[in-house]
Amino acid sequence: MPEPAGTPGPAAPATFEVDFEPAGRRVRVESGTQLLEAARSAGVGLASVCGGDGTCGRCRVVVMEGALPDPSDADRRALSRTEIARGERLACRVPVASDLKVHIPKASMITDQRLQVTGPKRTVAVDPAVRVYHVAAEPPTLADARSDFDRILAAAATAHGIRRLAADPVVLSQLTTTVRRTGWEVGLLARGHDLVGVLPPGQHAVGVAVDLGTTKIAGYLIDLETGVELAGEGIMNPQIAYGEDVISRLAYAVRQPGGAETLARVVREGLDALVGTMCEQTGIGRDQVAEGCIVGNTAMHHLLLGLPGRQLSQAPFVASTSSPLDVRARDLGIRIAPDARIHVPPNIGGFVGADHVAMILGADLDRVEAVKIGVDIGTNTEIVLRRPSMGHLASTSCASGPAFEGAHIRDGMRAATGAIERVTMFASDRLPELRTIGDAPAVGICGSGIVDAVAELYRTGRIDHRGRFQTGAPGVRRGERGLETVLSPAETNGIGRDVVITQGDVNEIQLAKGAIEVGIRILLDATGTDPASVDEVVVAGAFGSYLDLDNSLAIGLLPRLPNAAYVQVGNAAGTGAKAALLSLRERARARQIAREAGYVELTTYPGFQRRFANAMLFPRPEP
Amino acid sequence: MPEPAGTPGPAAPATFEVDFEPAGRRVRVESGTQLLEAARSAGVGLASVCGGDGTCGRCRVVVMEGALPDPSDADRRALSRTEIARGERLACRVPVASDLKVHIPKASMITDQRLQVTGPKRTVAVDPAVRVYHVAAEPPTLADARSDFDRILAAAATAHGIRRLAADPVVLSQLTTTVRRTGWEVGLLARGHDLVGVLPPGQHAVGVAVDLGTTKIAGYLIDLETGVELAGEGIMNPQIAYGEDVISRLAYAVRQPGGAETLARVVREGLDALVGTMCEQTGIGRDQVAEGCIVGNTAMHHLLLGLPGRQLSQAPFVASTSSPLDVRARDLGIRIAPDARIHVPPNIGGFVGADHVAMILGADLDRVEAVKIGVDIGTNTEIVLRRPSMGHLASTSCASGPAFEGAHIRDGMRAATGAIERVTMFASDRLPELRTIGDAPAVGICGSGIVDAVAELYRTGRIDHRGRFQTGAPGVRRGERGLETVLSPAETNGIGRDVVITQGDVNEIQLAKGAIEVGIRILLDATGTDPASVDEVVVAGAFGSYLDLDNSLAIGLLPRLPNAAYVQVGNAAGTGAKAALLSLRERARARQIAREAGYVELTTYPGFQRRFANAMLFPRPEP
Repeated sequence: MPEPAGTPGPAAPATFEVDFEPAGRRVRVESGTQLLEAARSAGVGLASVCGGDGTCGRCRVVVMEGALPDPSDADRRALSRTEIARGERLACRVPVASDLKVHIPKASMITDQRLQVTGPKRTVAVDPAVRVYHVAAEPPTLADARSDFDRILAAAATAHGIRRLAADPVVLSQLTTTVRRTGWEVGLLARGHDLVGVLPPGQHAVGVAVDLGTTKIAGYLIDLETGVELAGEGIMNPQIAYGEDVISRLAYAVRQPGGAETLARVVREGLDALVGTMCEQTGIGRDQVAEGCIVGNTAMHHLLLGLPGRQLSQAPFVASTSSPLDVRARDLGIRIAPDARIHVPPNIGGFVGADHVAMILGADLDRVEAVKIGVDIGTNTEIVLRRPSMGHLASTSCASGPAFEGAHIRDGMRAATGAIERVTMFASDRLPELRTIGDAPAVGICGSGIVDAVAELYRTGRIDHRGRFQTGAPGVRRGERGLETVLSPAETNGIGRDVVITQGDVNEIQLAKGAIEVGIRILLDATGTDPASVDEVVVAGAFGSYLDLDNSLAIGLLPRLPNAAYVQVGNAAGTGAKAALLSLRERARARQIAREAGYVELTTYPGFQRRFANAMLFPRPEP
Repeated sequence: MPEPAGTPGPAAPATFEVDFEPAGRRVRVESGTQLLEAARSAGVGLASVCGGDGTCGRCRVVVMEGALPDPSDADRRALSRTEIARGERLACRVPVASDLKVHIPKASMITDQRLQVTGPKRTVAVDPAVRVYHVAAEPPTLADARSDFDRILAAAATAHGIRRLAADPVVLSQLTTTVRRTGWEVGLLARGHDLVGVLPPGQHAVGVAVDLGTTKIAGYLIDLETGVELAGEGIMNPQIAYGEDVISRLAYAVRQPGGAETLARVVREGLDALVGTMCEQTGIGRDQVAEGCIVGNTAMHHLLLGLPGRQLSQAPFVASTSSPLDVRARDLGIRIAPDARIHVPPNIGGFVGADHVAMILGADLDRVEAVKIGVDIGTNTEIVLRRPSMGHLASTSCASGPAFEGAHIRDGMRAATGAIERVTMFASDRLPELRTIGDAPAVGICGSGIVDAVAELYRTGRIDHRGRFQTGAPGVRRGERGLETVLSPAETNGIGRDVVITQGDVNEIQLAKGAIEVGIRILLDATGTDPASVDEVVVAGAFGSYLDLDNSLAIGLLPRLPNAAYVQVGNAAGTGAKAALLSLRERARARQIAREAGYVELTTYPGFQRRFANAMLFPRPEP
């Protein structure tokens, strides 16, 4: 039993670990430490104006797991009863009395996470699912008391030759109200034969494309008539508070009573807020947003749509559906045009989702006349290979794990302010040169920094090709859990103790990079593709964009293919989502990609174990 | 200011009027009278087991309007906080301290209202919107990990040649859960290309048809594969608590903040409960109910669907839409198959609704080779005329008012237990012979009784053809508000005072029957139809079924046409709703009826005022 908070006895005080989400930053503190102080010692940018007096109400957090104290008077002043009931507290009023998992809402953060929202530019011919038809009708009289919809239909037939149009009551309500405000002039948002909403005269229809990642969500607001991108915005996936990766989130959905509903609710609320933010930025009304397109991996897809997760989380890992869907936005709680639909492109299977299809679409991988490999590195890494002579695509997915998100790494964290993102080491015992996000004092290390650090350890001979630290090498010391080296000493950084890379960290990276390398190798093998024939390796995704390519090749995170060019394209899935938002032809392409893509199962592939063991080694340096 | 309840001063105590809904019974009582006692003196069958001691909790009522006392201890014991907050009280604990409008929930009634649910029998070829396809698929394996929906689609293609089927996430959820319970055998509920739900193997699909009246709601559960009617059930429209007729309900929706939402909610809850009751009666699961069809007048239609009511309630009285709709049942809170639709047939205009279209369908009036008139008597009375040589239908609507529902009649009430429904008078001063509903002591008079009474007053010479009571005629006396005659003396009835028919009551009936008669006359005139050519007058609707035809003709409620047969067909709108539920061909007919029907506006018709004045007179007796 931990001792009661704030009253440590004469013995050494107990310590507890606090996990701050969504930054993914962990810190161990003495029992009784105030949570706000713990956040500071972890280098987490938790806001506070009053300096911990309980008066400003800025340091709100949600205690997700661990001992939740009764609300203080300050909590009662700053928070509603509902907020208190769901575990919200002021961090300056919570003494740490157990291990804690704490969620920091965006509003309580001093600085945001780095959320990449750009991707490869592609020109897409505008061919949207929703088109706008402007019509003007005569007001009703006793002599002509036809219904509102009848007179608008008649006007649409005359002006645009539209013969058939159906409308749901929510749209008819909007129509009846709007025409009486606009003098019977209105823009009809027609989606095939469905009227999904109406606009005041002259307004353009707008669409929203979303790349729904396990960690990050990127949204884009796009003019459906011109194709112009009006806004782009990123948020953290609020489901992070319930599990960092796909596996733990599915487990939460399956095992926790009401878990699936909670996960669906928080991500839907996040998406609705994201749309709201972009509408505010651009002065676009929510009712102008007439169509959406959301891509995500199959687990995110199921959790968003409220589809069962059990069969997806256990062998043979079956999706409820792989078909494209057009879901009513209002069924997802996304408040845009009253009957607007969200298009959800098809997935390829339990492990290869619509985000992979969108990545292929966004990077044009289905159309190339060259031999290309596309890699989207994440907690799960999806890989696709396309060889023109093969006539179809081959995809696979490997469990690269959350190490690149900073998890399972001693001082790992996500790519937030203070994260070490670039590392250069020296053969001498001189301290490494570092670059941190926001040039802030170092508080931890993010994925691209870890890759750099491991590559530099290998290049400078501090670790061998099996990943073992070399005793006696400059700067290599024995830490609590084996050999390690200091990246940022306590005196210069933001957490008051050394930021290090440990033997365990190196091994985590070996597991992760080995999984990816073996995926690419088996895909080449399974499709009978000569490695020398590969023309290009396209590295997609946010993490892949911050990666140092040379270092990635040096540690074998990416395989060295003799004739391949390596290209970082950014958020190709986002580009694909935008293309599918803007064009019915692109949606047809996405269906074709999903239909054609063959899935290669790695774990049952001959020699998988041996190949994986080999892939965990670091490659011998090029001669 | 009314005096505080229970403490009348030495002066004559104040009296207040209490209006009991849904029975529509009003009573005037002294200030301080307990509400339970008031209900008894009004002859309303309010349940009470403990006899007013506040212990049994049976006499729950909702105080809709007027002075609501603070809850008593007994209230707090018997009722939840929510119930108390929405105005529920035990009637035995409420002293009347103002005029009150009180709603008696069905559970608190000793006896139910009379709710007719039968209509003309029609044979309809089963041609439903939803068809059932039974399929069996192989369970997934690692080697064949296609999605659930993909494997079911493949099975449906093989077994039934189905090539295209889309499913919403709510259905996919049900599918994924069901196949794992039934060993991958399942019945697909296909509505065109939409999968609206799945059934365990062997189950039949069922549909629900509803005649949504302003006062009563009749529901029917029908096997969609055999056409067999499985259940029929009636309830009062719970919107009655917010207004007795269409006008007052639209006013509530338009003027009261949140009024439209409240009216939509209560009727949706009522419909959902009605479906639940019928499912319980028959052992049918809600998920088996794969389609619905609801007909109602245009105001009920708008209030159910949440369409704006303002433009419908003021000139030129325009409907938001006249098109047929297929609304998701779940959007209306009706819990049946997950993506089941409710078909709502078209209306003809603001005053002539889908119920009228369904009545024409139910009584086959669009197909007859004879000249026929259809009349559906209610608060609004709709009339249709069909002459084969005319090639189309002509409809009109007249404001016959709520007198036939017992409103505006001194001792009027709806057709509930204790209502006088048949009256025979004698030339002498002998008391009339009466028949009451349930053979209970008389507590008031309902519509069919009022028609009888007025006809008998006229036949026995107590009123003249202008409707004036004849001073000195046997049994005619001077009451508080002019001449009147006693139907049921205080000594023999259930309310302890005379039940009478007054001069005002006769005048109300003259207004009502005049409105109907002038409607029929103008419809004949406007279509150039010779009255002698009319073959049949079809009297539809619940009230029309209880009407004595001879008495109706005697007072001119129905016009005497020389060659016409008069037929009472019961709830033809319900029959039409059932036909439209069962058959796509019948839905096409309904669309055709709505398209062809010409609407004749009465109030702007030449000579309307003169015709109406004439129609208010009673016809001279036939020679």
